[in-house]
Amino acid sequence: MALLPLPEHQHIRYNPLRDDWVLVSAHRMKRPWQGQVEKPVQEDVPRHDPSNPLCPGATRANGKVNPEYESTFVFDNDFPALEPDAPEPDVGDHPLFRSASAQGVCKVMCFHPWSDMTLPLMALPEIRAVIDKWAELAVELGATYPWVQVFENKGAMMGCSNPHPHCQVWASNFLPNEARLEDRTQREHLRAHGQPMLLEYGRLEAQRKERLVVENTDWLVVVPYWAVWPFQTLLLPRRHVTRLQDLSADERESLASIMKSLLTKYDNLFEISFPYSMGWHGAPTGPYLGEDCGHWLLHAHYYPPLLRSASVRKFMVGYEMLAQAQRDLTPEQAAQRLRSLPEEHYRTRAQ
Amino acid sequence: MALLPLPEHQHIRYNPLRDDWVLVSAHRMKRPWQGQVEKPVQEDVPRHDPSNPLCPGATRANGKVNPEYESTFVFDNDFPALEPDAPEPDVGDHPLFRSASAQGVCKVMCFHPWSDMTLPLMALPEIRAVIDKWAELAVELGATYPWVQVFENKGAMMGCSNPHPHCQVWASNFLPNEARLEDRTQREHLRAHGQPMLLEYGRLEAQRKERLVVENTDWLVVVPYWAVWPFQTLLLPRRHVTRLQDLSADERESLASIMKSLLTKYDNLFEISFPYSMGWHGAPTGPYLGEDCGHWLLHAHYYPPLLRSASVRKFMVGYEMLAQAQRDLTPEQAAQRLRSLPEEHYRTRAQ
Ligand SMILES: O=P(O)(O)O[C@H]1O[C@H](CO)[C@@H](O)[C@H](O)[C@H]1O
Ligand SMILES: O=P(O)(O)O[C@H]1O[C@H](CO)[C@@H](O)[C@H](O)[C@H]1O
Repeated sequence: MALLPLPEHQHIRYNPLRDDWVLVSAHRMKRPWQGQVEKPVQEDVPRHDPSNPLCPGATRANGKVNPEYESTFVFDNDFPALEPDAPEPDVGDHPLFRSASAQGVCKVMCFHPWSDMTLPLMALPEIRAVIDKWAELAVELGATYPWVQVFENKGAMMGCSNPHPHCQVWASNFLPNEARLEDRTQREHLRAHGQPMLLEYGRLEAQRKERLVVENTDWLVVVPYWAVWPFQTLLLPRRHVTRLQDLSADERESLASIMKSLLTKYDNLFEISFPYSMGWHGAPTGPYLGEDCGHWLLHAHYYPPLLRSASVRKFMVGYEMLAQAQRDLTPEQAAQRLRSLPEEHYRTRAQ
Repeated sequence: MALLPLPEHQHIRYNPLRDDWVLVSAHRMKRPWQGQVEKPVQEDVPRHDPSNPLCPGATRANGKVNPEYESTFVFDNDFPALEPDAPEPDVGDHPLFRSASAQGVCKVMCFHPWSDMTLPLMALPEIRAVIDKWAELAVELGATYPWVQVFENKGAMMGCSNPHPHCQVWASNFLPNEARLEDRTQREHLRAHGQPMLLEYGRLEAQRKERLVVENTDWLVVVPYWAVWPFQTLLLPRRHVTRLQDLSADERESLASIMKSLLTKYDNLFEISFPYSMGWHGAPTGPYLGEDCGHWLLHAHYYPPLLRSASVRKFMVGYEMLAQAQRDLTPEQAAQRLRSLPEEHYRTRAQ
């Protein structure tokens, strides 16, 4: 049987980080779309809105007044999913009815005092301030909590309920599913292959280039071989860094720069403020700080929902929920499109 | 430390079928919602639209003309994600770049000739015809394919691009992720506990009642202890049936009846045609037909996206994608709400 080049025909690909598979059916992009069309992404956000609880000087739900902050600003989520003092639940009386305690902290972090600002439009020192604050929170919350999840929901399409540029940081007394999974797969890979999985993967992608989106001395961004979302990317350091707080000053500078490049390309893809959920994964903290976490490599996942245009998203529904993720273009096609986009933002270019 | 009742405080619950956890933060329902509001669900679908490719007598994308069908109607998806003759891919040259062949069949199945019909509004014999057709396809495609995924995406919110009542059936030459996972967990449970997991689980839920939504002699519907979506349900037979095709005539009758009850309650919850993705999971087929699959119990999952109202959905985004699913009301609260809803459809009541 002849071995045909991958892009032409449907096949499945293995995701070694999640130990699962994705169905790649590149030819599905050809089908007409008569389904739901998304509302236009809001582009006319007012710079300052005193009634927006994330703005400098605004009053929040709990009556507290925000300071007139000029860079980042961190506060406790007024409707936290995790609280530090939640009592122990009844642990359950049967193996099919098991529960366990969930304690933690939910913080909100504003990136910038202006509501009409986004990361790709921010200056490099401003992005660097965000990175430093992430590292600071990772140290502070990671002192006791085993997992500190930094994540950003961007755009109403991704459930973000406030247009002001911000992310969230949720720390928990348990390792969440994705953390447990990546801990296991990376540990097994190191044991079997003698190299941290993502360090080896990044080196190979830097050579192969077909899935590269952008790179610099310290970092690279790829559409991973096993990407599920149409324009999903993986941001990897070149050095064996396991946690955000371990990044050197130079690596933070170059991280600001590669984030700006990636997010500019994302915005340029459909000439909108590109929606996504993103988050950082690194070695666990708290009690794990004293353990060997050499199988980990710090990385960020970007999961953008859009598929065809600013208004047509990928629905991860029926087959995806019940059976397996399915994508409609190859990771190589997505990488090529992102790679070829300009690094100057469409909004500054237009001026 | 005092053991407090579960509903009041956040905790995590274990899902034995997926071997993962969900964060339950019941108090999150109190937070105000300023995020995306969904478009109203389309309620004025024309009964017959000759330009709709799913209607009787309509011409499809490939030029074929649908028969003037009067019950169910099955045809090959004109834009299939899986095709029977896809060539073998290059299997990859490295453990981090693994791919495998994907071959299969994608069918579309119309439930009824009218576009303004939905399952809960259909008569019991009409629903029974759908069930018989599911079983027929499970036999036909399951003769060779190891997995036959029957699923329905209902509503534009769930990526459904055509309002005509229909489901899809995708058969593949591989076991998809969810199938592999449930095969493993059910196998391990039988080995460790001597009973099929879901048979044991169903019996316990029938006794405990707090998560029951509706039941009859052969079936029960629960909001599972580990439900992720706000109004997620699990439909279970009381007998140890492993595949759709093994249901007796009586069980098919009572299945039609319990589906009608459940879907009527769903529609009554917010008085709209309730969106969801649903699908059947049963023992694998093809080469597995000759193997012992006694650890399996046939079941259907219903995953509805709505949370607060007809227009406010649950977003499974940042924390959920990067860390762990999180829900904003307890499964017991959801079950109680569904249980208390009338079994007469709001549209027939209004007449
Ligand atoms: O096949 P359809 O209805 O056009 O498409 C829908 O269901 C598929 C299977 O769940 C998904 O892959 C698509 O994203 C969704 O839009
Ligand atoms: O916390 P927010 O932004 O109000 O809420 C958003 O992010 C949360 C964390 O990913 C999700 O649980 C919510 O469904 C989503 O709407």
